[in-house]
Amino acid sequence: MHDKLNVFSPVTWHGSHIHLLDQRLLPRSEQWLQIDSVDAAIEAIRDLVVRGAPAIGITAAYACVLAAQSRAADATSSGWHELWLQDCQRLILARPTAVNLHWAVASMQQCLADAAQADVQTQLQKLQQHAVQIHAQDVAANQRLAVLGAELLQARSRVLTHCNTGALATGGIGTALGVIVRAHQDGKIEQVFADETRPWLQGSRLTEWELQRAEVPCQVIIDSAAAWLMATRNIDWLIVGADRITANGDVANKIGTYQAMLVARQHGVKTMVVVPWSTVDINTASGAEVEIELRQADEVLSFQGQRVARAGAQAWNPVFDITPAALVDYLVTERGVIAAPNQQRILALQRERASATA
Amino acid sequence: MHDKLNVFSPVTWHGSHIHLLDQRLLPRSEQWLQIDSVDAAIEAIRDLVVRGAPAIGITAAYACVLAAQSRAADATSSGWHELWLQDCQRLILARPTAVNLHWAVASMQQCLADAAQADVQTQLQKLQQHAVQIHAQDVAANQRLAVLGAELLQARSRVLTHCNTGALATGGIGTALGVIVRAHQDGKIEQVFADETRPWLQGSRLTEWELQRAEVPCQVIIDSAAAWLMATRNIDWLIVGADRITANGDVANKIGTYQAMLVARQHGVKTMVVVPWSTVDINTASGAEVEIELRQADEVLSFQGQRVARAGAQAWNPVFDITPAALVDYLVTERGVIAAPNQQRILALQRERASATA
Repeated sequence: MHDKLNVFSPVTWHGSHIHLLDQRLLPRSEQWLQIDSVDAAIEAIRDLVVRGAPAIGITAAYACVLAAQSRAADATSSGWHELWLQDCQRLILARPTAVNLHWAVASMQQCLADAAQADVQTQLQKLQQHAVQIHAQDVAANQRLAVLGAELLQARSRVLTHCNTGALATGGIGTALGVIVRAHQDGKIEQVFADETRPWLQGSRLTEWELQRAEVPCQVIIDSAAAWLMATRNIDWLIVGADRITANGDVANKIGTYQAMLVARQHGVKTMVVVPWSTVDINTASGAEVEIELRQADEVLSFQGQRVARAGAQAWNPVFDITPAALVDYLVTERGVIAAPNQQRILALQRERASATA
Repeated sequence: MHDKLNVFSPVTWHGSHIHLLDQRLLPRSEQWLQIDSVDAAIEAIRDLVVRGAPAIGITAAYACVLAAQSRAADATSSGWHELWLQDCQRLILARPTAVNLHWAVASMQQCLADAAQADVQTQLQKLQQHAVQIHAQDVAANQRLAVLGAELLQARSRVLTHCNTGALATGGIGTALGVIVRAHQDGKIEQVFADETRPWLQGSRLTEWELQRAEVPCQVIIDSAAAWLMATRNIDWLIVGADRITANGDVANKIGTYQAMLVARQHGVKTMVVVPWSTVDINTASGAEVEIELRQADEVLSFQGQRVARAGAQAWNPVFDITPAALVDYLVTERGVIAAPNQQRILALQRERASATA
């Protein structure tokens, strides 16, 4: 349904199933998986077939539709709502750190609650419409983020980015990478450097691939070279996405973000965090309250099925970290740009929009 | 000849050839290469069969012996010295950043110059003795480094290290890793974390393997997790080796060292750099004058021979970086420990020893 929105869209909806581009295999191989059930969706989210907070959220919204279709078909009359809510709960638990997953499922739950009086067919229809709308909102938000973020850049910018925040991570053109591609179209990018982003190498596999398709000059670096790059290669900006922004402006994002943001500050490199508003979690006060997903050691100790370390070796594998708001120069959302984000400024933007739509 | 000195010794001398443990294959496979010529030694150094500044220096010393044996056998009477000096020059160029390579070859050249009046057999004998002595000195230096470094640690230390600085990188028990193993024997180590150290993964492949054999508890982390580790896991020390210490105390070491040292300072983690005095390069004023080796992009864009990034992707691959002396809390050498190293203190230690041996 959304195939036309963006040639790279990693999530497409087909009425009774989801197609997911298997990002674990990129760029070597472009394979699509057909997801027919909520359980298959949960597995795909957990196994990183789909990754990137917004793309996970969109996938989860469609998975809620699949779950509803299945529960409504199986169950006797109204009994399916409760089972569906359990499906929703299992979906939320598939990945703990990104808030978009939780946000999308909660939004789907609200949709069904609002349609509680309607007949089953109408309920299913409304859920489907709502999922499609969540996807479309992300596409629109991405466009707006790109414009607002690119405006902040000066001509001939030299930019470092971490992880993958492009079309592959979202429903649209991306968050941080959308800003970079838009700035390049505006003639403002001299050179992009992409952290390879261990352990899953989203930078060298996905970001490099997307930037090359957009004809943006890109060089990959190992993650630990970021400080040396900043010390010697005149970097202007570090631009990243996020999996969750807490009420005080702390940033939960891919492991390595905190380190890169810290060394950016040490080298006078400006930092920009680019997120759709659905990533802002007003209900979590600060990064200290965010659950950081710990994954299995094998992701660090092996690579694409090939063992690197000794059998029996141990690893500590947190896949996200928290960057304190104080290290963020600009938080770019589709609602507007916040310089030096803090709780007061984030709540102000939240209220402003709430009153505008009231 | 030195097989007994240390079970892990990656360089052994056998009178007419060198045996090198092929470190590219560890820990999966333990294969030894027989090196019969200076050209084979240059290739092995360039291709990372042997790595670690001290181990490269020792290999180069033995390679000088091989070159002399070959040139003396081929050439007519005294004509071989000039050809041998050309071999020495090619050896020095095999890796530009580590100073031990240059130091060892220069020391071998001095040895032959000192024996200029002797007959050929005596010259060859003296060169061989000198190479063996360079190796033995490194073994002795390692022991002393371990004692001096371990003394600095308090009980229950939690330590992060970068790259591999153990027996595999040296002639003896190692530099930074020698300190860690010794401190563990002294009951001072609670936990070691090892950066995996992209792109060659010396941390997950070699350091983890050595620590496990020494029964030191070790967890591998991805390099970009160092700051988050320090922020959340009570790290006391960052202990590293170096490829060159310049006269002012700047540290040229494996890429990623600068970033780790920078974030250590931000988190109040003490830093220790452990080197044999042969790594101190009094003739280079500061890190700004050190040539940083840039290697091919493929080392970043592939992972153990398996392509990661798109064919045609580009990468920036400096394999060393410079840490300013100001980020070093302790420089440990076999001549003594320097707190807050700077030019004055390094030159003082240099002169002290020079006058002691005068």
